[in-house]
Amino acid sequence: MPENHVARLAQRPKGEVKDSDFDIREEAIADPGDGEFRVRSQYVSLDPAMRGWMNEGKSYVPPVGIGEVMRGYAAGTVEASRNPKFSEGDTVTGLFGVQTHALSDGKGVAHADTSLAPLQTWVGGLGMPGLTAYYGLLKVAEAKAGETVVVSAASGAVGQVVGQIARLTGCRAVGIAGGPDKCRALTEDFGFDAAVDYKAGNLFADLRTAAPDGIDVDFENVGGDIFDTVLAQMNPFGRVAVCGLISMYNATELPPGPKNLRNVLVMRLRIQGFIVFDFARHNSETLKTLGGWYKDGKLKFKEDVREGGIAAFPATLRQLYTGGNFGKLILKL
Amino acid sequence: MPENHVARLAQRPKGEVKDSDFDIREEAIADPGDGEFRVRSQYVSLDPAMRGWMNEGKSYVPPVGIGEVMRGYAAGTVEASRNPKFSEGDTVTGLFGVQTHALSDGKGVAHADTSLAPLQTWVGGLGMPGLTAYYGLLKVAEAKAGETVVVSAASGAVGQVVGQIARLTGCRAVGIAGGPDKCRALTEDFGFDAAVDYKAGNLFADLRTAAPDGIDVDFENVGGDIFDTVLAQMNPFGRVAVCGLISMYNATELPPGPKNLRNVLVMRLRIQGFIVFDFARHNSETLKTLGGWYKDGKLKFKEDVREGGIAAFPATLRQLYTGGNFGKLILKL
Repeated sequence: MPENHVARLAQRPKGEVKDSDFDIREEAIADPGDGEFRVRSQYVSLDPAMRGWMNEGKSYVPPVGIGEVMRGYAAGTVEASRNPKFSEGDTVTGLFGVQTHALSDGKGVAHADTSLAPLQTWVGGLGMPGLTAYYGLLKVAEAKAGETVVVSAASGAVGQVVGQIARLTGCRAVGIAGGPDKCRALTEDFGFDAAVDYKAGNLFADLRTAAPDGIDVDFENVGGDIFDTVLAQMNPFGRVAVCGLISMYNATELPPGPKNLRNVLVMRLRIQGFIVFDFARHNSETLKTLGGWYKDGKLKFKEDVREGGIAAFPATLRQLYTGGNFGKLILKL
Repeated sequence: MPENHVARLAQRPKGEVKDSDFDIREEAIADPGDGEFRVRSQYVSLDPAMRGWMNEGKSYVPPVGIGEVMRGYAAGTVEASRNPKFSEGDTVTGLFGVQTHALSDGKGVAHADTSLAPLQTWVGGLGMPGLTAYYGLLKVAEAKAGETVVVSAASGAVGQVVGQIARLTGCRAVGIAGGPDKCRALTEDFGFDAAVDYKAGNLFADLRTAAPDGIDVDFENVGGDIFDTVLAQMNPFGRVAVCGLISMYNATELPPGPKNLRNVLVMRLRIQGFIVFDFARHNSETLKTLGGWYKDGKLKFKEDVREGGIAAFPATLRQLYTGGNFGKLILKL
């Protein structure tokens, strides 16, 4: 009889996530109760936000409790159901956690149409990353045709979509990424107008070359020195959508913030943080737009699917914070 | 024959402003040309922004050139006119510079109704500071009834008005100021709900006591550690209007920015810089609102009028950056 492979939070990590922060176990598989269904997960999304979910303290969602299944967004197939809205064989996505089998009452679960896109894409470009890119760029930063958009961690799951939507909106899209391979992919595969390699050591000058008219919109995924450098080149009335601050997530002490804060005043910038969940009421409409672009070949998603099952989860998660992945990081179960 | 006493910029200051950064001179008084008038200035406004105007580099207005009259907002009386809109004896306000006599073509000059308020108030609460407070609180931060508003440098020219408008809007008004005298004035004279003395050394805890439900709006005048502490106590979807960063203005190196930047993301904060000039099209309407409140006794302005004429300008300006003033700092000529 198959068992549920599950990653439970063993302790709160200090700094970088270690294998010992998780308890990887095999457990008995439970049967669905009335109104529930059981899903066999095939893909788990690895998201930068996971690090924050492991910390104690006030945030936009409660932290994962010690001993609880690690929170995670996943896609899979319904294998038993006592819920009339979900039938055996349905492909679905939801917060099923980092485990091979999950029970759900259907709340927050969406059907994934695998005739439109393969299942893994429903935790990728057509999952949270695509929605995050869309809302941050168009609803938070309000990018408009003719403007210059810069996105950091541009080859990541969200960044690659930001650049493509910027282009579809009529903006100049500039991506910041680490290393020549990622930068080449930005311009050649994803159609960015320019790419800047922050590892080359000339970020300020290279960014100026890539965005000669200054920066109108910054889609910020990184924070730290990269954010500070972008801030120094913002145009009057520029907007920053703060989507992530991945450079800070493993910090055990709070690092200093941006030195170029004076530019917020002088240039009348608007810096606004957002969480994809805040816009959930627009999801079905937005997925129609994104799905349409994907179907028409106007939007591509690069996924970085790793093998190894639940046991590989801690090591795979660490890749996110060291730039070890290229594209949306997904663990295949 | 009277002469024009004038402060010209002698050199760009490094760090704190020194007397030798200005050339204080007596010069011949010129007669107005066609379309011009001459004003005898009686009050010059001392504004934190002056320090930025003395620096080289890109900003929202060009820097004052070496050898030029120092830029300044002033109120005075027309003493000779060849401009049909301004007659001898009219009381007016405008960017007449730091000098006793100025020529003007009338651009950006407003009549000051001294039956409504004394002339000095037209460079104070009914001048740039009042307008700045109004726009920052209501148009940038969009404070709404029932919210908690915190303002730093609260006993300053802008801060004292921010707190009073917050109260008139139905908000809880919390002021941060230095020392027990200034704090007492905030609650007793200006009607703030609470005042916090940052010099007492317990800013985090004292602020928590003063704003027990968290902070919805921060009207930021100071920056640095005070801003960082406020940022740590902001509520979800809070707004920060960045009006000034006076703690940074004399810095020769950029100080580190706020460490609590993560809260921008987690709490979905909006931080927005603004300059009073951006809202100039609303000035006459806004001055009617502010003037009405002033006339009805709902709005008070504390002015700190210094003697000593133009020669006292550099020393008086320094007071602004050391907390040596209490209320709107004005130099009487």
